[in-house]
Amino acid sequence: MKRYLLDLSYKGTEFHGWQLQNNAITIQGEIERVMSMILREQIRIVGAGRTDTGVHAKFYVAHFDIENEISDNKKLVSKLNKILHKDISIKKIEEVSNEFHSRFDAKSRTYEYHIHLYKNPFLNDLSAFLYFLPDVQKMNEACNILFDYEDFTSFAKLNSGAKTNLCKIYFAEWKQENDKLIFTIKANRFLRNMVRAIVGTLLEVGRGKININDFRQIIESKNRSSAGQSVPACGLYLTDIEYDIA
Amino acid sequence: MKRYLLDLSYKGTEFHGWQLQNNAITIQGEIERVMSMILREQIRIVGAGRTDTGVHAKFYVAHFDIENEISDNKKLVSKLNKILHKDISIKKIEEVSNEFHSRFDAKSRTYEYHIHLYKNPFLNDLSAFLYFLPDVQKMNEACNILFDYEDFTSFAKLNSGAKTNLCKIYFAEWKQENDKLIFTIKANRFLRNMVRAIVGTLLEVGRGKININDFRQIIESKNRSSAGQSVPACGLYLTDIEYDIA
Repeated sequence: MKRYLLDLSYKGTEFHGWQLQNNAITIQGEIERVMSMILREQIRIVGAGRTDTGVHAKFYVAHFDIENEISDNKKLVSKLNKILHKDISIKKIEEVSNEFHSRFDAKSRTYEYHIHLYKNPFLNDLSAFLYFLPDVQKMNEACNILFDYEDFTSFAKLNSGAKTNLCKIYFAEWKQENDKLIFTIKANRFLRNMVRAIVGTLLEVGRGKININDFRQIIESKNRSSAGQSVPACGLYLTDIEYDIA
Repeated sequence: MKRYLLDLSYKGTEFHGWQLQNNAITIQGEIERVMSMILREQIRIVGAGRTDTGVHAKFYVAHFDIENEISDNKKLVSKLNKILHKDISIKKIEEVSNEFHSRFDAKSRTYEYHIHLYKNPFLNDLSAFLYFLPDVQKMNEACNILFDYEDFTSFAKLNSGAKTNLCKIYFAEWKQENDKLIFTIKANRFLRNMVRAIVGTLLEVGRGKININDFRQIIESKNRSSAGQSVPACGLYLTDIEYDIA
């Protein structure tokens, strides 16, 4: 049995998220279908984490096991890319140790949330449109509060089945580039829907609906209903996953 | 009667080109429909030129006449953008002299052609995918030949109804940025399908199928069938239109 790592990227718009589902097209399902066909063996891939419907990944890591060694990795990548859905691109396939695990070995994940402030026909599905310019400095002040906490129950989807709501946030910052805003957040792990709930709540700070103290109280309440609305999936990108090895 | 200028941009993927057609959605048709509805007057807009199905415009200029003065241009722009198709964005509406004409007064047009060299899920419909890296230097040598000629019949769609096939090309250059290629071309006017036929023929130079002398002979032949295949519409952008006034 050989274990291989898969580097890939995908545009999530046309998929019902990463995870395999019956009767719905998912990224995992599409890759397993095409790989099993090409490699003539039932392939199960294990991803670094789930992403929801419409969420994109500029960088994603998965692994899979296979009976027979792959003779030419580059040729397989090129073959896969020709057959796979237009919105999935495989960058690399390489052999790893049988101990490597794409999810358990990941030390951190980084997400970006993209916002544009004027109607832009080229950013539909790739960024979220916001009708107002929020106060970026205030939102960054609120970001600094995130580092004081580890329990983010307030930003977690209820009944998601997660055993713990503890996360270590390493980085969180908004940047404005002309008529675009990009929020970057890095943590050891994320709860389901967490980034979109944090962004929605930070935007409430940015438009003056709540203040920085309110933001702190929302985290401390450990109550999802106190936080702001989740922002649309189309602006969210998984952009990096860090490993010690591989 | 007041005349107004319209600055806009659009993603062409879902439209059957700029020009009004029965039974097909076009950019002109969509804007006229929405403007007529909002302004409660039948509006006819005159564009700076036609673009084909799937071709984009980062910058486009049109004009229209209206009986009653527009009281608040910015408010109208914002209203239009809310109702118009997601892939059309109006940037500006401003009053111009009754002599201004978006097509006849245009002194030059600039187009870009975008190519990406690796499968990229975020560039579908926005750039053309090429399986090989062409010789960019050779393509730029061939570009210089374009300045020696004014008759581009070889790159014109047959029976397009144009009175003359003469064009003055001011600029033509390929640039490589990482795994992307962008071709920029500026001329006083363009024949139908001309940019896509030039790009297709330059790519044949770039992959070594024809040489620079062949390229010159193709132009001199004044015969469309001697040139290379047209490249897909998805990579083509109208990016600028210059006027002396306005």
